[in-house]
Formats: sequence, C-alpha cells, structure tokens
Amino acid sequence: MTTKTADSTVARQAAIREIAEAESVAYEVLLERVRQGRAVVLGGPGQAARALGIGEGLSTKVNANIGTSPDISDLDAEVAKTKAAVAAGAHTVMDLSTSANLRDVRRAVRDCCDVPLGTVPIYEAGVIATEQYGSIAAMPADLMLEVVERHAEDGVDFMTIHCGVTLASVARLRAEGRVGGIVSRGGSILAHWMLQNKAENPLYARYDEVLQICREHDVCLSLGDGLRPGALADATDRGQLEELLIIGELTERALDAGVQVIVEGPGHVPMDQIEANVAVMKRVCRGAPFYVLGPLVTDVCPGYDHIVGAIGGAICAAAGADYLCYVTPAEHLGLPTEQDVVQGVIASRIAAHAADLVKGIPGAAQWDLQMSQARRDLNWDAMTRLAIDPTRVREVRSQRASHDEQACSMCGSFCSLKRREA
Amino acid sequence: MTTKTADSTVARQAAIREIAEAESVAYEVLLERVRQGRAVVLGGPGQAARALGIGEGLSTKVNANIGTSPDISDLDAEVAKTKAAVAAGAHTVMDLSTSANLRDVRRAVRDCCDVPLGTVPIYEAGVIATEQYGSIAAMPADLMLEVVERHAEDGVDFMTIHCGVTLASVARLRAEGRVGGIVSRGGSILAHWMLQNKAENPLYARYDEVLQICREHDVCLSLGDGLRPGALADATDRGQLEELLIIGELTERALDAGVQVIVEGPGHVPMDQIEANVAVMKRVCRGAPFYVLGPLVTDVCPGYDHIVGAIGGAICAAAGADYLCYVTPAEHLGLPTEQDVVQGVIASRIAAHAADLVKGIPGAAQWDLQMSQARRDLNWDAMTRLAIDPTRVREVRSQRASHDEQACSMCGSFCSLKRREA
Repeated sequence: MTTKTADSTVARQAAIREIAEAESVAYEVLLERVRQGRAVVLGGPGQAARALGIGEGLSTKVNANIGTSPDISDLDAEVAKTKAAVAAGAHTVMDLSTSANLRDVRRAVRDCCDVPLGTVPIYEAGVIATEQYGSIAAMPADLMLEVVERHAEDGVDFMTIHCGVTLASVARLRAEGRVGGIVSRGGSILAHWMLQNKAENPLYARYDEVLQICREHDVCLSLGDGLRPGALADATDRGQLEELLIIGELTERALDAGVQVIVEGPGHVPMDQIEANVAVMKRVCRGAPFYVLGPLVTDVCPGYDHIVGAIGGAICAAAGADYLCYVTPAEHLGLPTEQDVVQGVIASRIAAHAADLVKGIPGAAQWDLQMSQARRDLNWDAMTRLAIDPTRVREVRSQRASHDEQACSMCGSFCSLKRREA
Repeated sequence: MTTKTADSTVARQAAIREIAEAESVAYEVLLERVRQGRAVVLGGPGQAARALGIGEGLSTKVNANIGTSPDISDLDAEVAKTKAAVAAGAHTVMDLSTSANLRDVRRAVRDCCDVPLGTVPIYEAGVIATEQYGSIAAMPADLMLEVVERHAEDGVDFMTIHCGVTLASVARLRAEGRVGGIVSRGGSILAHWMLQNKAENPLYARYDEVLQICREHDVCLSLGDGLRPGALADATDRGQLEELLIIGELTERALDAGVQVIVEGPGHVPMDQIEANVAVMKRVCRGAPFYVLGPLVTDVCPGYDHIVGAIGGAICAAAGADYLCYVTPAEHLGLPTEQDVVQGVIASRIAAHAADLVKGIPGAAQWDLQMSQARRDLNWDAMTRLAIDPTRVREVRSQRASHDEQACSMCGSFCSLKRREA
C-alpha cells in the first residue's frame, strides 16, 4: 500500500494535466476550478490510484460501495466485487467494511484496483469501540481521530466524515420529527454517541484536527450527510438542511485550510425536489463537487433500487451533481452480490451518461451519434463495441437470434432500417 | 371475442364511474375531461376489457407490447408473455404480431387477459400485401382500411394508426436529413408505399373513413408517430414536429367526430428536450392523452434500455405524459422473452409511480409513506407486501439472509434503524 505525501503540488499539477487531457478541458480552466474548490483531483502520478477529476465541467463520475458486513464477511468476495465494479466502469470504490480485519480488507481492496479508494473511518471506530470498550457510546473521542489518521496513513484517497451531525442539527431533526429517522450508519453512530454522552460530535468539535490529518496526507474530505433522509416523506426537511448549512461552513474551512472537499447529498428525494437540492447545495457549499446517493425517487421498489437510483441520479446529475454513488438491486434488502455490484455500476453509468449528454460534456454526444450511425447501417459489430456493456449485448442477441443476420428477431424482414426511406 | 357496439353512452358512463372511484377523482370532473378529450376511457362493463382511464388527473398508465415476429412465431409464448405482463402490472397490452395467423394471435391475446388491447393494423396489411400482392408497395389502399375495420370488428380497444405520415411530413423529414432515418415499422411501411406509389398516405387521405370505423366500433384512435426519431441526434427535428402538427389537426377532427383519441410520442429524446416535447404536444393536440415510447435518453445502452426508458419515462410523465409504452432489455437487440417483458413492465411502472408522486395522484404518496413506516419498524412482512414486486424481494432477501432476522445482511448489528436515534 503506497502512502501519499502532503507536498504534492507538482504531482497535483501532473494529475490535473492528465485529467484535463482525458476530459478535453483546458488545463488552466481545470487548475482554476481545483483551486476554487469547484473540482477535486484524486490519485495521479506516483500514487496507487490513477488520476481522476470530479466536479464542474468534468464528466459525471460513479462510485461503487463494497465491503464486508457482520453477516457476510469474505475478503475474497469483496476483492472480486471490487474488480467487477472497476471492470464495469466504476470510477472510484469505497470500502465500507464493518467486519473482519478491517485493515486487511482495506489493503486488499487498495491493491486489487487502480481507482481512487474511499472509506468511512467511523465504521472502524464503531467496530473497535464495540469490541474493546463494549459499546458505541463508550467510544473515546480520540479513537475517532486516530482511526481517521490510520486510514490516511493507509493511503486512502478520500474519506467520508460526518462532521455536520452536530447537537444543533440532530436537535433540529428531532424537533421536526421524521418518518424514517436517521438512516446513515455513520450518522446514527454519531447521533447515538452524542446523545448518550451529552457531548458535541468530536469530528465537528475537533474539525481542525481532521483537516490537519487530511492536509498532511493529501486526503480529500467527503463531508458525509449523516442526516440524509431515508424516506421520501422526510426529503429536504429541516434536519437535512441544518446539516447542509453546517457542511457549507465546514466546506469553506476545508478550502481555507488547503484541503480538497466533496459534499455528500441525499438519499430519498421526490423528482420535483431534486433540482432544488442541487441548487441549494451548490450555493451553500461554494460550488464544491456534489456526491449523491441515488437519489431514490420512490421508496416502494426494493429489488429494483438501481433503476430508481438511475432515474434520480440522471435528473440530479443533469441539474449539476458531479458524482453518483451507485445503488444496487440489493439496496434495502441485503449485502450486494458481485452481480448486484455490476448492475449497480451500469445503472449509475447510464444515469451519468444521460446527464453528461445534456451537460455538454465533450465526447458524450459523439458516442451516441456513433451508435446511431451503427444502428442505421445495421452494423452489429460496431453496435456491440459501442454499447455500454458489450458482453450483455452478445448475450441478449445470441438468445434471440434472427434468421436474418442483418436484422434482429424483433422485426426480421419487417426491419424499418432495411427499408431506408429517409 | 366480444365485439363492442357504438351505442355505448350508458356503458361509457358506467366505465367513467368505475374509473373515477378507483382513482379517487370526482365523477363529474372525469366526465368533463373525457368530453373534452383530455382523458380517454377504454373497456368497461359489458366489454372484454375492464375499465381503464388514461389522461389528465389520472395515474400514469403502462403498456406492454407483445407479438410474434417473422423469426419467432409462437402463439403460446405470446399468450404467456401477455399473462406475465398483466401479472406484473401492465395496464394495457398491444399485440404487434407480424407473423403466424394474425387473427388467431389477436384473439388468443384478447381472451387470455382482461386489460384493454391495442393493435397496429398496418402490420397485418403489410403481411397480407407481401403474401398476396408480392410487396408492400403493391398494397391496395382499400386493404389498409379493410384491416382497420377487421381489427375493430375483433373488438380491440385501441389502434395505432399512423395518419400523420404524409407527403408533407416525409418531405420535411427528408429535406432536413436524419442520422437514424424512419425507425417506426408502421411509419416506414407507409413512407415506402407513398414514395413508391407517389401518392398520399391513404390513412390520411381517407381519415374520415378511419374515424367512421372507430366511431362505429367504439375504438379509441391512437395517432402513431411514424416519424419519431430513433436517434438522439434526430430528436425534436422538423420531420417529427411537422408530423405532430398534422396529428394536432387530426386530433381535433377525431374529437369533433366523437372518436376518442390518444397521441403517440417519441422515442429517443435527450433529457433536456423531454419537457418541451410534452408541452408542445399538449398545446398542439388540445390536451389529449400523451402516450410515449420510453423516451430513451441515450442511444448507447442496448441490453439496458428498460433502465434508459425508465429515466425518460419518469421525466416525461412528471412533465405531463399520461401513458408509457414499456421498453424491454431486449430493445434494439431482439424479440423480448417473457422475462424481458416482466422487467420492462416493472421498469415502466417505477417510472410511472415516481411521476405520480410529483403529479399529486391520490394514493401515490401514501404508498411510499407506508413503505417508509414499515422500514422504520423493520417490519419485513409489510415491506415485502408493499413492494412493487414482492416475489423479487423474497428472492433477493433469501439469497442474502442475515443472522439477525430483524435487520438485513448489509448492516446486521450495525443497522441504523435498530439504533433509532430520531
């Protein structure tokens, strides 16, 4: 596992150069956006992860969550999922493990792929607290900071830290009341700790120390939305917005301290509140990259939440979100299998690309144009090669072969494209 | 097969009463919307199909296409797909068969389900023309009308007829040029016929006869968009809009003639053009129900077009579309299997429901609220019962069982909901 150094100005510029070229953005423009905090750079030359940019003017990125759970703890399976996620096109991977030797899992995941790796240190702190101190509530505040530092030393590229779950935001949430309560694992751990200890969230109270660690190890901070709603009925409520206001202040402090920052967002949001969520977040957080989970536009489709998330993700990214955390078909039901991971990545990539088309991302429309031309020409090799998942195309087509090799079994000799009247 | 009669005023009112009750809309309001052509009523007491309303103020409906093709012609399979589609929640079925004894297929599909049935008579006319006259171009104009009448006599509830594919609209399309050409099977048959015969589309030239048949047999006319774009690059082009303007005029003529009418729409549309498409259609067609295919918001995802269509369908329905034609994972690749049909119906239902939540359709938000409450209470029986596809929930959950029966294998003992801090 390669650790990173804080003195990375030269490496950062090289990474920006690589990203600018890959995304057809002018180097100076991207450099300025990174300087302003409107885009972040993860990985790059000399690091374990290849360079990746997230933010304004860049293509929409997709994250895949993997990780063990107390019930299903199989390091090899998580490595296989990581590889499958990256092969399916995930731009980053987050290890959300909550069982087994967490450092081993983290290192195995880091070593098996070259995309930026994210983690949520509070999970490990929670596991250690339960094992060593008997409960979450007994977790020493120092432990929270120590685990953050340990992850930074392990060379993770970004970390979700729920600094906006504070006495004020939790109180506001409880005052209004909620159908779904607190559904973020990190958020619920911290809220529990705070309420039991009648004390402020140490990751907020000692935010300067968090920033110090991130700066020293060149880790990008992903400000987690621990109070994100887990039910449509709770969407955009006062608890969520209070946390967002705090996160806006913390974003400024991170940028002032020279720490890169991403802001996380919901969650469960009805379609007609998505644009407002993006607009408010972008305003409150000075244009920082917006990283959303879904969002899910209905609660009633467990088993199909990758589709629900694709609807929300596409709308959200088209409105300005920069980074989509995938949702798998297993969401709300269980730990995803490798197949679920692939389905989740593809669904989010579809949403990201649909949005990139309307964001005017260089190359996005060209891809669709080439596919349409291949379709017009009934060029099946090109259609397969250009598809988001060529393996899937071969599979579907072979199961439903046409006698007419040029057409497909839907229309056969009735194919409108063979007629070519326009 | 039950045929319908034209003298259906009493039956129509009974159907409106049933629909009004089922959808929690005032009877008088719905009656007036039907009178104005802003909603249509299919089926009802005394008919083969149960009553179904489509249009303003009603929940978004979903159609599943089934039917044989020249390559795969298996009546039993199409009956099985029809039953599977209805079981998955399709509100209507369209039989798009293009091979086998078409009347047998149509009757078998009609007899195996009780949802409104739609057809596209020009396909049968094309098959007959090819068999009896040697080519599409040799099709007698009378045959087109005869087949329309035959379908009406067979008691179909609605028919797609491409009356807007005219010399003017095809010329406009060709003048601008297109990447994808004409991709509608019906549109391409008619354009081919017109260009070969240097004659106007008989279904346009003899539209009064079409209306006469529809009125006599109480068939709802679905004005097909034979010039819909089949590529994002062609979306909202002049050919599409010229056809829409003609369809607007034909909608008025249908309403004036006492014929119910639905208007069909695209197709392939980038996300940022969907709302405009709905707004223009609703204005041009006097608020008639809008029936869209997808729309697909990117061209590059064959194998996953049900997800692409769910994104477009949700946005389109939220903007005012009333009726979504499903898209299956086999779209652009082959004839759908029964499994594809189910996946397509569910994906469209997800889109329809996400839209109904923001359309304010009575009962829509209540469903999500109940699911959220069941989730908060970790009530797995209720979560399963309330899911859009309970079978799928049981399947996913059993594959990824948790040791903790109350939680799920994603978080197990780390379940935020077991902690209940808010």
